Amino acid sequence: MPETMTDPRQLLVHELGDIYYAEGVLVKALPTLAEEAQDAELRAGFEEHAEETRGQLDNLRLAFEALGEKPQSERCPAIEGIKREHDEFLADHETSDEIRDLFLTGAGGRTEHYEIAAYSGLITMARALNETRVVELLEENLEQEKAALTKLESCGRRLAGVAGSNGTSN
Amino acid sequence: MPETMTDPRQLLVHELGDIYYAEGVLVKALPTLAEEAQDAELRAGFEEHAEETRGQLDNLRLAFEALGEKPQSERCPAIEGIKREHDEFLADHETSDEIRDLFLTGAGGRTEHYEIAAYSGLITMARALNETRVVELLEENLEQEKAALTKLESCGRRLAGVAGSNGTSN
Repeated sequence: MPETMTDPRQLLVHELGDIYYAEGVLVKALPTLAEEAQDAELRAGFEEHAEETRGQLDNLRLAFEALGEKPQSERCPAIEGIKREHDEFLADHETSDEIRDLFLTGAGGRTEHYEIAAYSGLITMARALNETRVVELLEENLEQEKAALTKLESCGRRLAGVAGSNGTSN
Repeated sequence: MPETMTDPRQLLVHELGDIYYAEGVLVKALPTLAEEAQDAELRAGFEEHAEETRGQLDNLRLAFEALGEKPQSERCPAIEGIKREHDEFLADHETSDEIRDLFLTGAGGRTEHYEIAAYSGLITMARALNETRVVELLEENLEQEKAALTKLESCGRRLAGVAGSNGTSN
């Protein structure tokens, strides 16, 4: 039976639950990505972002609180799909370390972009509803995701350069 | 049995197949999004982007050709997850027109961000492999995705503003 939704605040709370679920998936996935990465900078980046993600989950709980709501996850099929893409690729391919690292920067980039999309949409809604405290909390998370993406992209360029110059010889 | 992958060109072709699959899903989904949207600007945006997506599929076929490969889709669980998020939300919620439109701008934004992530990664790899023609083709697609995202974000701000000022009264 469909739930009635006519108040933008309901959509805000729903989508907050969606990213709360996604961050919960990621806080568990990031240490695995760190283990899978062979490149020291990439590995350190995933470890650092796992730590950051714990703080983001705290911010999300505070955002729920600011809205007078209990933190509640909404199953997020998008992050599950992004995770499945990673899991299936590594199960289906026997890669060299450098190809795996390059793949992981791509998987990380897709994740960061998903989160940037989610936080951007949430901030637009929270701002329209004059929920200033929620905007502040989510902007903190958004800035961290953007910084994480910039680092991943820089790692990706370096790793692609190395892989490209090794060509088909390795 | 895992496939061996040690050549960055294999990863490039694999990820090209992933976005080729994703664009194939989207070219069918966008007319549905256009029908679901009530706001004229949002609807026109989805219609226009459906048309653009057909050209992007042509560019992807040309990119495969430039690499001496046949166009081949790789099932992309991420875009399936993003689509499922849309389908389940609309099945589970009886929304007002304005809430649905606001939700659709968010769903569109998540899709554009996914594609931006995919094209950015592909361009980094193609550039490292000196595949200039592939870079050109993918950059054309990337610029269109970025422009589509900018339009969606502007639509989202307008729709959130209207929804926010209507508050809980509608």
